[in-house]
Amino acid sequence: MALHPTAFIAGPSGAWRVTSIRSFRGESLPMAPALRISEASRAGESDGWMLRGTASNLRYTSQEGVSELRAVQSGLGRPAATRAALLPITKSAAWWALAQDERMGVFQRAKHHAIGLPYVRPIARALYHSRDLGEPFDFLTWFEFAPEDTPAFDHLLAELRASEEWAYVEREVDIRLTRA
Amino acid sequence: MALHPTAFIAGPSGAWRVTSIRSFRGESLPMAPALRISEASRAGESDGWMLRGTASNLRYTSQEGVSELRAVQSGLGRPAATRAALLPITKSAAWWALAQDERMGVFQRAKHHAIGLPYVRPIARALYHSRDLGEPFDFLTWFEFAPEDTPAFDHLLAELRASEEWAYVEREVDIRLTRA
Repeated sequence: MALHPTAFIAGPSGAWRVTSIRSFRGESLPMAPALRISEASRAGESDGWMLRGTASNLRYTSQEGVSELRAVQSGLGRPAATRAALLPITKSAAWWALAQDERMGVFQRAKHHAIGLPYVRPIARALYHSRDLGEPFDFLTWFEFAPEDTPAFDHLLAELRASEEWAYVEREVDIRLTRA
Repeated sequence: MALHPTAFIAGPSGAWRVTSIRSFRGESLPMAPALRISEASRAGESDGWMLRGTASNLRYTSQEGVSELRAVQSGLGRPAATRAALLPITKSAAWWALAQDERMGVFQRAKHHAIGLPYVRPIARALYHSRDLGEPFDFLTWFEFAPEDTPAFDHLLAELRASEEWAYVEREVDIRLTRA
């Protein structure tokens, strides 16, 4: 069962209006009016930038963690979730040189799962893996939430960014969007 | 630091002559005279088939396991290693539905690392990840060895294929090659 890489295409039109693009760490991306999301094989050309990633298997979550997430997490596309954020992230060579158990140890000590769990009902999310595709970012993280949950989303980001795991993040762009 | 997907291109010419293509499980691939290996972005068109994958981070090997491998493993391109095998492998939906700790448990019970370790000096190997690229196979495994180590290679395959892990393999093609 082959997977299908997804493309995030910045340009003149799309289902999401881009409200801001800011660098959290490293080089930013150019501003664009809108973002559209498409299967990568049908994406066509872009007037702006295009980032690709694949919704694939989770690589650090235990069976217990998966069960906890599934019991409470919201899906994408809720009508009330008119705000979104796209956070492309690249981790350092030091991160990728760690073995699987060492990377899982950082996740556990950073409490990545525990920090995120209280937020997964109001803030729907998806993770796209980009590194194997030869992309400039390792991951594209996508979040959808209602306008009144924006402060909660910003609090989630602040908690994650203060964790040990973020010492390995060498580039992160913070793109905010409103449903067009 | 972006990775670069690799292409394995079957066609009329290449550094490796194809001596056989057999299905171990599921649909085979068409026979071709030769195989060339190239960076995917420069691969061009193929008269035969083309498979892509990325040499990426290991996902099941512990720090201890990595150290053991590094101490003894051989690199690709040894002049005496005039035989090669390309084994594209697809695992089942049941495999990919397992959480990371469950997949690591299968690896450990299957003794994947322990089975392979005695072979990593005579049989050089590389693993290319294909699943996130939307390819028909999940992995491309590549092996290089001297002609006299062919029986050892076949013994390695027999041991792995008899393990619990191989219950999750739903397609595997066994392509043998000789340096042209």
